[in-house]
Amino acid sequence: MSTFGTVFRVTTYGESHCKSVGCIVDGVPPGLKLTEDDIQPQLTRRRPGQSKLSTPRNEKDRVEIQSGTENGVTLGSPIAMMVKNEDHRPNDYSETDLYPRPSHADWTYIQKYGTKSSSGGGRSSARETIGRVAAGAIAEKILFKSNKVEIVAFVSSIGAISMNRNPLDEDFIQTLKTITREEVDAAGPVRCPDPKVRELMVKEIEHYRDSKDSIGGIVTCVIRNCPIGIGEPCFDKLEAKLAHAMLSLPATKGFEFGSGFLGTQIPGSKHNDAFYYDEETSRLRTRTNNSGGIQGGISNGEDIYFSVAFKSAATISQEQETATYDGKDGVLAARGRHDPSVTPRAVPIVEAMAALVLVDQFLLQKARESVSALVSDD
Amino acid sequence: MSTFGTVFRVTTYGESHCKSVGCIVDGVPPGLKLTEDDIQPQLTRRRPGQSKLSTPRNEKDRVEIQSGTENGVTLGSPIAMMVKNEDHRPNDYSETDLYPRPSHADWTYIQKYGTKSSSGGGRSSARETIGRVAAGAIAEKILFKSNKVEIVAFVSSIGAISMNRNPLDEDFIQTLKTITREEVDAAGPVRCPDPKVRELMVKEIEHYRDSKDSIGGIVTCVIRNCPIGIGEPCFDKLEAKLAHAMLSLPATKGFEFGSGFLGTQIPGSKHNDAFYYDEETSRLRTRTNNSGGIQGGISNGEDIYFSVAFKSAATISQEQETATYDGKDGVLAARGRHDPSVTPRAVPIVEAMAALVLVDQFLLQKARESVSALVSDD
Amino acid sequence: MSTFGTVFRVTTYGESHCKSVGCIVDGVPPGLKLTEDDIQPQLTRRRPGQSKLSTPRNEKDRVEIQSGTENGVTLGSPIAMMVKNEDHRPNDYSETDLYPRPSHADWTYIQKYGTKSSSGGGRSSARETIGRVAAGAIAEKILFKSNKVEIVAFVSSIGAISMNRNPLDEDFIQTLKTITREEVDAAGPVRCPDPKVRELMVKEIEHYRDSKDSIGGIVTCVIRNCPIGIGEPCFDKLEAKLAHAMLSLPATKGFEFGSGFLGTQIPGSKHNDAFYYDEETSRLRTRTNNSGGIQGGISNGEDIYFSVAFKSAATISQEQETATYDGKDGVLAARGRHDPSVTPRAVPIVEAMAALVLVDQFLLQKARESVSALVSDD
Amino acid sequence: MSTFGTVFRVTTYGESHCKSVGCIVDGVPPGLKLTEDDIQPQLTRRRPGQSKLSTPRNEKDRVEIQSGTENGVTLGSPIAMMVKNEDHRPNDYSETDLYPRPSHADWTYIQKYGTKSSSGGGRSSARETIGRVAAGAIAEKILFKSNKVEIVAFVSSIGAISMNRNPLDEDFIQTLKTITREEVDAAGPVRCPDPKVRELMVKEIEHYRDSKDSIGGIVTCVIRNCPIGIGEPCFDKLEAKLAHAMLSLPATKGFEFGSGFLGTQIPGSKHNDAFYYDEETSRLRTRTNNSGGIQGGISNGEDIYFSVAFKSAATISQEQETATYDGKDGVLAARGRHDPSVTPRAVPIVEAMAALVLVDQFLLQKARESVSALVSDD
Repeated sequence: MSTFGTVFRVTTYGESHCKSVGCIVDGVPPGLKLTEDDIQPQLTRRRPGQSKLSTPRNEKDRVEIQSGTENGVTLGSPIAMMVKNEDHRPNDYSETDLYPRPSHADWTYIQKYGTKSSSGGGRSSARETIGRVAAGAIAEKILFKSNKVEIVAFVSSIGAISMNRNPLDEDFIQTLKTITREEVDAAGPVRCPDPKVRELMVKEIEHYRDSKDSIGGIVTCVIRNCPIGIGEPCFDKLEAKLAHAMLSLPATKGFEFGSGFLGTQIPGSKHNDAFYYDEETSRLRTRTNNSGGIQGGISNGEDIYFSVAFKSAATISQEQETATYDGKDGVLAARGRHDPSVTPRAVPIVEAMAALVLVDQFLLQKARESVSALVSDD
Repeated sequence: MSTFGTVFRVTTYGESHCKSVGCIVDGVPPGLKLTEDDIQPQLTRRRPGQSKLSTPRNEKDRVEIQSGTENGVTLGSPIAMMVKNEDHRPNDYSETDLYPRPSHADWTYIQKYGTKSSSGGGRSSARETIGRVAAGAIAEKILFKSNKVEIVAFVSSIGAISMNRNPLDEDFIQTLKTITREEVDAAGPVRCPDPKVRELMVKEIEHYRDSKDSIGGIVTCVIRNCPIGIGEPCFDKLEAKLAHAMLSLPATKGFEFGSGFLGTQIPGSKHNDAFYYDEETSRLRTRTNNSGGIQGGISNGEDIYFSVAFKSAATISQEQETATYDGKDGVLAARGRHDPSVTPRAVPIVEAMAALVLVDQFLLQKARESVSALVSDD
Repeated sequence: MSTFGTVFRVTTYGESHCKSVGCIVDGVPPGLKLTEDDIQPQLTRRRPGQSKLSTPRNEKDRVEIQSGTENGVTLGSPIAMMVKNEDHRPNDYSETDLYPRPSHADWTYIQKYGTKSSSGGGRSSARETIGRVAAGAIAEKILFKSNKVEIVAFVSSIGAISMNRNPLDEDFIQTLKTITREEVDAAGPVRCPDPKVRELMVKEIEHYRDSKDSIGGIVTCVIRNCPIGIGEPCFDKLEAKLAHAMLSLPATKGFEFGSGFLGTQIPGSKHNDAFYYDEETSRLRTRTNNSGGIQGGISNGEDIYFSVAFKSAATISQEQETATYDGKDGVLAARGRHDPSVTPRAVPIVEAMAALVLVDQFLLQKARESVSALVSDD
Repeated sequence: MSTFGTVFRVTTYGESHCKSVGCIVDGVPPGLKLTEDDIQPQLTRRRPGQSKLSTPRNEKDRVEIQSGTENGVTLGSPIAMMVKNEDHRPNDYSETDLYPRPSHADWTYIQKYGTKSSSGGGRSSARETIGRVAAGAIAEKILFKSNKVEIVAFVSSIGAISMNRNPLDEDFIQTLKTITREEVDAAGPVRCPDPKVRELMVKEIEHYRDSKDSIGGIVTCVIRNCPIGIGEPCFDKLEAKLAHAMLSLPATKGFEFGSGFLGTQIPGSKHNDAFYYDEETSRLRTRTNNSGGIQGGISNGEDIYFSVAFKSAATISQEQETATYDGKDGVLAARGRHDPSVTPRAVPIVEAMAALVLVDQFLLQKARESVSALVSDD
């Protein structure tokens, strides 16, 4: 349904053609400084064609906090946020009255709900993610203020053009340790931090644009400074909630963390992350990080990293042979210009969902720790 | 935490060295014929060294239904199930009092809970999955009786030895359409239905066994006859719940459905699943199935299929340089013989979790449909 | 927290001095005709000084549906609703900067959240109930269209002036069978349907108004045509959820259903509701209804009725000896005029909460029934 | 359904004639000393005819911890507990195959579930409360160790014989301040601490026993030393959760807290609890406690007290005119001897449910406090 989280709960609403989209965030701790300026930057990064953290003056998708703060400080009550829709229905969609768009949600929404919204796929619209990003910005601020948690996502592959994501590769691990959002945005609209790979990605995208086609990609995300001990076995292991969060995003096809699918090919003797005592942090750490910062469903203090697969955009302007709702063969081509690669826009959305997972599990662990300290005899 | 599901809810308990393991299943519809004979086969398939559906007489891991049925029929009340543990602690584990086992959950459990169970990783034990499999067997029976749903998982890769999982490959799609559990079990302990690939897998496993090492693998699962319209956008899309369920299993590293990670490289023009009118079922169907049976988070009636990555087993008998709990360098080697490839045992567990996801979302959709029919004017 | 319900979920937001108040309603079945005209009447009944179902033109508290409908029909997606606040802070509240108002939530909110909203009690404001009433109106429409469910609340006592609520009294039972909202509103602002009692109530209220004091009261509510079999044992028995819902309202002190507290004094031989076969409905019914329509936590088809106690309003304009936040003795008197009896305004709020409980449990039961019919062999 | 709580979650199972009854308690903080000896005393108090805290050697209803502890200390994993049923079906129930017992749950269970358990009312059996009491004992231990919370319930009325429960009465308030479980049990099976009232209660019960009838009663419960700030507005106000918990118990008819229903008759000027500065605790306290320790849904540090109404037992041995399942008139009389007053047995169950509510909300508040301290700038 439309609520995510146990004690830090986000409930979103809205589709493409209604009055507004937004969310209610329940469980935000009181006393946190919070204004629209904390929320807007990620919403702006989410918009098409945006890649800068800066906030242009007369932009669209302006968020308005409705409740839950006073004098710029959270009250502990639910924070409602709203972004107005521009309500006109673009003409380009008109043929979708006849055709369920292939690999869109038009047909399944009708099957499920027995009714068709003018936007076709209802809540499967990318516009639904606005509420997630707004809520995620609050989660991120809490995590940063409490633990200096840093969450940075970037595009690691477009089509067959890919950065090395092998966890035994030093360069990849180094990228995870240092990459910043500023660097990601400085990389231009493709949001890949590796200059050589990026150049090839741009060409790849241009190729699909020129052939009126589209291509998918992979977003990789790192979480640094995650407190140790986060994650709720057995069903709500940290990786399970991250997978849930990521696969709830539109157009996703897969999730992997740490060594991921490649890790199935690395023998145990190399895959095991040996422990050593680290003088600087005065605790055990691991020499490698194939575990991706999570062992047994619980964060171990190493960098958490994972990747999310996004399929090629379903809307393409070349002709596709398909069928109408009532079963007649036909040919459909989307009118207008369409972005051949929407993966880069997912970057702030992936970050938002990661923050929502973490903050909820962080609160749960703090509850446990606080009470355990009071009842334990040790 | 230890509960999964919204209206069909499973709560599990137990770790390796306590009295018993088991679960409570709440929300089972009344009137279903159900005895231990419906549960035991999957539990038996889950045990080490088992590959047959047949139930040997004096086996271990016997399940006992505690409540919720009378005269072999469900009452609608919670069904508790229990499997006794053999409670002795094997000597082979003794060195783990000094060493957190690399890439096990020993260290993170201590960090999270501040206490160490004798089994090290507490609930991260594979034994925890018994409750899931027992509950899943009930879910499967409901799905089969109501919709003839068939759920079949199999091993599609061991290390670098892999079946073709390309969704544009006819053979792969054909395997998904026809594979049965009987065929999977007939394939022997490795549980791969492709004879050629299986032979190579056996050699691969022997190689790692001989070098006192371990190797990971991939389990692929197909769900046939899933009713159309299952899945709860936006946060509980069908693929999101499946990903959550699968990544909550021990030793998993990734999840993908339909075209998966490979799908990021297939251009939209090929990736889009064109519609056609199917005379036999009198409805729209898709010519290809890159969507993996799910569009916009909702089942579309095509086969649902997905793959789950399992890492190489962390317990190996060769020596590993690592550190003790208190930070001293040392060398750890697991005593005794260890299974070099645990992936095949995951097969019934993956099936169980898939069934738990489906039945919960099926119930939710039936609630919606029933009431929508009563309030709609159409 | 701020979410109520399992499959029909309401999440509310807002306090007195923020931009707006409202809610998101998730789980509304698709295909229901729904516009603001379905919502506004109960919101209008909730406003101070209102007692008519009619909707004046330029009224305050106008609700705006933000999402989830198109062309006046629900889509199945979340319905967000919003009512703007008039944001100025009344001067009359200024002394509450020094004094926690006795028996208000000012002091406990500061203790809990460590921060003080300008309205003092934050979410304990009566304004928070707007979201509930808006959501309840949708729930009511579903219940009425699907089952002709009628929910009518009225004031049964003000201070010591009370209607007879004895379940063995024929007149009381008759009132429950026939009372309508129109009759309740026709009774004037006190909302008591019994003319003699009402007259005394008006005098009672005038007495307390003249002495700058306040007085509490009881709201009784009847639910007619509730489908049989609603309620989710064991923890979510129908009466348990109703009690939860009612005690979550501001200023409530108690809840009873059926024979209630008086029922503890009626011996079993009289309290037991004997069964008889009813020709008209072709089923068993009960001769008496001390059970209040609920047995074993499950509705039995008889009228459900319950009462909710509301305390005397805490805000009074006579002087009260109390203490300031920092512990100094002082005298506080609320400025301005204050309603000596707020109980009548609770009438639509009680109805709304009853509807929210019922619709959620109705959906759950429909899920069970639908699937049970598919899996049962009978 | 059968799960209660958000972060401290109890899931119960079992009915009268299955193998065992019990529960899984999830969210118990690690490091707590816990053995069966912590659980058994309340289970023993719950049994018919028991009134002592002492534990006789060969008693029935012995609890067995299945998981979640090691060496007598909690691990942080789910604690499963089980009590075996004596499985034979008493002959006395045989006529209930023909008759739905009046004011029992026999008929509604069949209507809801479409199936009849041999015990008639399935989960409405008093035996279902065993899991609650076992879980409550853990909750109590946590609350006591962390905050010295004391929870004491007692019988305050039987039929028309009643202790004074007026919150403006000094004696009543004094009883709440000092009453102990030892005193309650020393009062004999009727569990009323007031000697004069008790004597009359005993006579009342004897009267109903002699006339083969039954009579109801009221259990009052006080919670001392509840930490300030517990309760989760708006829907999960402390009183709302207490009401939910209490009305989920079998045979309950009502709930009130603080001044309760009587409070509706006390004018605001007397009902308001004036603040004063208390030197001993260095904080504001209230001179009266009509609020019952809860203001705006949040605990204020004063004693929390509430009362629960229990109806007269439905099983009586005098003849009742009623109807059979298939609608024929008939006369039913329960065979054997029946307890004319079951209210006293509810005492430990009420305590258990109160503890379950508190510990869950205590954990939630500790999560908020911990994180608020980390993110607040003050």
